[in-house]
Amino acid sequence: MNSRANEKTAEATVGEADVNLTLAEAEALSLRVLSQNGLSALHAASVTRVIVAGQRDACASHGMYRLLSCVQSMRHGKVSPGAVPTIEQRSAAVVVVDAHRGFSPLAFEMGAPHLIEKVAKTGVAALIINNCYHFSALWPEVEALAAHGVAALAMTPSHSCVAPAGGRAPVFGTNPIAFAFPRGGQQPYVFDFATSVVARGDIELHRRRGDPIPAGWGINASGEATTSADEVLDGGVMLAFGGHKGSALATMIELLAGPLIGDLTSLESREFDGGAGVTPLHGELILAFDPQVLGGARDDLSAERLFSAITDQGARLPSERRYAARERSLVEGIRIPAALYRDLLALL
Amino acid sequence: MNSRANEKTAEATVGEADVNLTLAEAEALSLRVLSQNGLSALHAASVTRVIVAGQRDACASHGMYRLLSCVQSMRHGKVSPGAVPTIEQRSAAVVVVDAHRGFSPLAFEMGAPHLIEKVAKTGVAALIINNCYHFSALWPEVEALAAHGVAALAMTPSHSCVAPAGGRAPVFGTNPIAFAFPRGGQQPYVFDFATSVVARGDIELHRRRGDPIPAGWGINASGEATTSADEVLDGGVMLAFGGHKGSALATMIELLAGPLIGDLTSLESREFDGGAGVTPLHGELILAFDPQVLGGARDDLSAERLFSAITDQGARLPSERRYAARERSLVEGIRIPAALYRDLLALL
Repeated sequence: MNSRANEKTAEATVGEADVNLTLAEAEALSLRVLSQNGLSALHAASVTRVIVAGQRDACASHGMYRLLSCVQSMRHGKVSPGAVPTIEQRSAAVVVVDAHRGFSPLAFEMGAPHLIEKVAKTGVAALIINNCYHFSALWPEVEALAAHGVAALAMTPSHSCVAPAGGRAPVFGTNPIAFAFPRGGQQPYVFDFATSVVARGDIELHRRRGDPIPAGWGINASGEATTSADEVLDGGVMLAFGGHKGSALATMIELLAGPLIGDLTSLESREFDGGAGVTPLHGELILAFDPQVLGGARDDLSAERLFSAITDQGARLPSERRYAARERSLVEGIRIPAALYRDLLALL
Repeated sequence: MNSRANEKTAEATVGEADVNLTLAEAEALSLRVLSQNGLSALHAASVTRVIVAGQRDACASHGMYRLLSCVQSMRHGKVSPGAVPTIEQRSAAVVVVDAHRGFSPLAFEMGAPHLIEKVAKTGVAALIINNCYHFSALWPEVEALAAHGVAALAMTPSHSCVAPAGGRAPVFGTNPIAFAFPRGGQQPYVFDFATSVVARGDIELHRRRGDPIPAGWGINASGEATTSADEVLDGGVMLAFGGHKGSALATMIELLAGPLIGDLTSLESREFDGGAGVTPLHGELILAFDPQVLGGARDDLSAERLFSAITDQGARLPSERRYAARERSLVEGIRIPAALYRDLLALL
């Protein structure tokens, strides 16, 4: 891997072409970066799974790029790199996983089998994750649950950086919400979106590339509209999607995945960070719904008619692009910018 | 009541001033309209509670105006006016109420105590309503649950009249979603919004008043933008709020409150209606979350700090206007347009 890596660095330096890696190479690189920076083997494996899945599905802002902030978070000493999540069976319908200030993916992977077991009996069930550092997209989680034939809804706050509708000061995080609905033999229906106009990672990628951001994504420290990624990220504020409705959804996510489960709001996560700029610390709420218990059938004609009514008129299902990218990546591997590749090698 | 009613009709005819009714008078009028049109006493009482609550809170499109469509639905013979909902304890966490093609409010009132009982044990629980004619706002339901110290999330499809993002043909209903979070001694945090840009009732009220609708609410039968309420309501299509994100939420509501619970999508509700123009027939999903079980405290400082962070910068909580209207109505009664008052009397 090392000589191969050096070759690629050389190549990148000359033409600044993207670096092409097989998925196995991307996994190996991620594992090395994380392990050599002190993350336990269990955590490194689960973090690698979500990061490589993100890159594979062409979600650049949740792909290999995130390794930089994972390492930064560990180097700040806030993330517990060897934390072993503990599991509590809170009720017939609720399993609670305390991540003990480790990264979230391992906590999810340990809690999910319990959630699946519970929901098969109760029809609706919840997996609560507390005290986790969360940086990943939510679709890998809801998609994993849908593979067991259940619908799933996940939400989490982050660091406050989004103003409520009618305001100018940050209150909400980008507060993502993700949903999956199983479709028999097909890939599930999945969406995963930030309740801000865009994900913070999208603004960070614009800054990295030196590109302006579209109008409407955020305002600067003086409360004025701006197309500068720097101005939004440094002292500015992002905006919620869909006006007061998006703002209301962001509030719900704060409440359900924060105070309801005894965990931090985005404001509190930001305070706890104390300017370190580390991945947010907070909780996550993941709901599962079993169609077999709730009255639906697993490969439901009614759901398929709904999907056809959307796609037959040329509209897109939210996961289509991601699934197409996945098929390509499985054959062609992934591509990351040469500069990112160099930054990752510099962490070894 | 009758002589009083006649006085008010006379007054209305002369000056077309709004008609002022006490809440007790509004209740009595609603009960008479519903009973004299054949609705059972139990149903008439529960329908009246949500309709008068809507008018009291200045939600005109879910207020006394809805009596017109309730009666129209009964006269079409589709709604079962004496249906007695049946209750099934589906699991430790799920209660299912079959409304047997009656209106939904009675089904909710009969199911809610079971939901409250379950969620106190399991932490998360669901009330599923099947086969109901649904016309009411959802906030009365989630607000009633919050009064028991639990958070609640409710959603329901309707008749297909909203195009998916990127499309022009109706697939979704206005698909409302409502959420409540308890706040100790204060009124709960509550939102209730259509996933269309506006509620269908708002467009109907514009038509009734002869007003144009703002741009962006809908498109006409040819797929062009229009400000004509008639064009949108007759063969046109409404649009989802927030672009592809709102469209994704609308899809989730179709799936969770439709196929997941073995009930109709908005497309199927429209088909079942067969052009009668009756209130939609479908299901509803209501989730409850108990902070005492899930790790949160009931009057949570963390939640209150969140609300203050929103209101301290001059932004509004979504239920503020409604609660203010309620306070006024409790003192001053309600006001309805004279023409609506005449239309209601004509139903007696």
